Amino acid sequence: MNQPIRLAILGYGNLGRGVEAAMSYNPDVELEAIFTRRAPETLHPMTNVPVYHVDDLLKLKDSIDVLILCGGSATDLPVQSPECAKYFNIVDSFDNHSKIPEHFDAVDAAARTAGKTAMISAGWDPGMFSLQRLLGNCILPEGHDYTFWGKGVSQGHSDAIRRIAGVKDAKQYTIPVEAALERVRAGENPELTAREKHLRECFVVAEEGADLARIEREIKTMPAYFEPYDTTVHFITEEELKRDHSGIPHGGFVLRSGVTGLQGETKQMIEYRLTLGSNPEFTASVLVACARAVARMAREGMHGCKTIFDVPPAYLSPKDDAELRKNLL
Amino acid sequence: MNQPIRLAILGYGNLGRGVEAAMSYNPDVELEAIFTRRAPETLHPMTNVPVYHVDDLLKLKDSIDVLILCGGSATDLPVQSPECAKYFNIVDSFDNHSKIPEHFDAVDAAARTAGKTAMISAGWDPGMFSLQRLLGNCILPEGHDYTFWGKGVSQGHSDAIRRIAGVKDAKQYTIPVEAALERVRAGENPELTAREKHLRECFVVAEEGADLARIEREIKTMPAYFEPYDTTVHFITEEELKRDHSGIPHGGFVLRSGVTGLQGETKQMIEYRLTLGSNPEFTASVLVACARAVARMAREGMHGCKTIFDVPPAYLSPKDDAELRKNLL
Repeated sequence: MNQPIRLAILGYGNLGRGVEAAMSYNPDVELEAIFTRRAPETLHPMTNVPVYHVDDLLKLKDSIDVLILCGGSATDLPVQSPECAKYFNIVDSFDNHSKIPEHFDAVDAAARTAGKTAMISAGWDPGMFSLQRLLGNCILPEGHDYTFWGKGVSQGHSDAIRRIAGVKDAKQYTIPVEAALERVRAGENPELTAREKHLRECFVVAEEGADLARIEREIKTMPAYFEPYDTTVHFITEEELKRDHSGIPHGGFVLRSGVTGLQGETKQMIEYRLTLGSNPEFTASVLVACARAVARMAREGMHGCKTIFDVPPAYLSPKDDAELRKNLL
Repeated sequence: MNQPIRLAILGYGNLGRGVEAAMSYNPDVELEAIFTRRAPETLHPMTNVPVYHVDDLLKLKDSIDVLILCGGSATDLPVQSPECAKYFNIVDSFDNHSKIPEHFDAVDAAARTAGKTAMISAGWDPGMFSLQRLLGNCILPEGHDYTFWGKGVSQGHSDAIRRIAGVKDAKQYTIPVEAALERVRAGENPELTAREKHLRECFVVAEEGADLARIEREIKTMPAYFEPYDTTVHFITEEELKRDHSGIPHGGFVLRSGVTGLQGETKQMIEYRLTLGSNPEFTASVLVACARAVARMAREGMHGCKTIFDVPPAYLSPKDDAELRKNLL
């Protein structure tokens, strides 16, 4: 076996923990270090990996093949990814779709100047869902795209509920509307409103004596977050929230509904579905496979910023090409 | 817009017709010629494209960017693909899984010597299903693979029925067993026998006076083809066969059932599903997208034999990278 690919994690939240946990499934990589903005001694990794303060990042520059950025897309990655790409091959899971072009440009400039390889937006959406959208559009150029999310926890919507006066804690699930999915699968190519595509289900722990009717009303009428959807609100106890809603499941569907034939007379349907027990652990698993591809692209001199659209799929695998052709083609 | 990619078809059966029909959905390519082993004047293309005898193939060598081989995997492609790769960039849909390694080697040697680019096994299985198997294995290294086929017409099984004495015509559908699919989706990771995975449903037109009971028995006890499965046989009229069973639908499912987390405690499920109104038209659509990728790889000097595992996904698209990132990532 070749030398293992030496990885490091920057940012130790749910995603960073997911990357750490993924190591045991990927014997061709090893985790050299975790970097954090917190005091290193306050971190307790699940495995035997050294923790350093982020200020020491450059000291370990030569012992890391790929740095996996596990920060958030709102404020961390727009700064960290271009900065780190000056010194490291990197992979991130930047997921702010509308800002991908500018994020790409910033990371690409840094990586090209430094002769490094970077991969952005590696996860499932963007990431695997994007790849399925691309494939669907290439194979069935005449058609419609549909993406449904859930059933899964939306952090942003859960946070929005928690900001309402009288709310102690909350968890929000985004749920695809089965009837809409069935219409798409039937090849109807419907135009679907937000309300027709997704339901929102909220589990709320209220403070003692809070006005539950007011909280429910404030949730259901919240513009953009809840008003455009059919929303149900359940008030539960703190114990119930902890017992029944502490996971971070997610998933969804990408469908391409297209036609072929001389007159467009033949219906063709492609459906991709993820059912994820843990959103951050799955995203982390994608990040590790992409880090492997980044290491190979870096070795081959493919510098600059990449996305899943640019990666020969075999580069995601630790197996050699002949083995892949024999067993998986 | 750039110069269109000049394609040609070798072999004008269902697949060749599918490629011809796909032209109108792909404005960046154009069909220069159809080559056939039959007398060219006996062919009636659906569009205005010249037909030549296969013996004239090399005369048009310089006006074709990619030759799409639409012959069969049993006897045509093992000869044609290596031979044509000496003179053309090619793409084929070779689908004899167990012989892929030797087919790859033969095509690779021819293409490398000639400085050409070839892509084999471009279709949906092998092809898109293979890509999903690869992605599933890379993201969830700890897990199980499942491939189900159907509901769809199996040409080989239909032919086997037609060879029985007293059978005038027949159509066989392979049908995935819904209960098995549900067990896989539930993360049970079952070991499934052939019988547990697929049903076989046969529609048979018998000759007048034929012994139907004998025909049914011969079908159901046919080794390898039907004996290992639960098989149902319906006798219908020639008119019914033509009216209700003249399409060539197919499809299927690729599932990767895996785990993540430090102790493998989290279930993760990836499911890819195709529901195809026409098997050859869908395969043809994949071939055209792959021909586009072959043309680009050839321009960039990426010679030799490739598979879908080697192709950066963006190469399948006529759109530029920035547009893909903005709209599909």
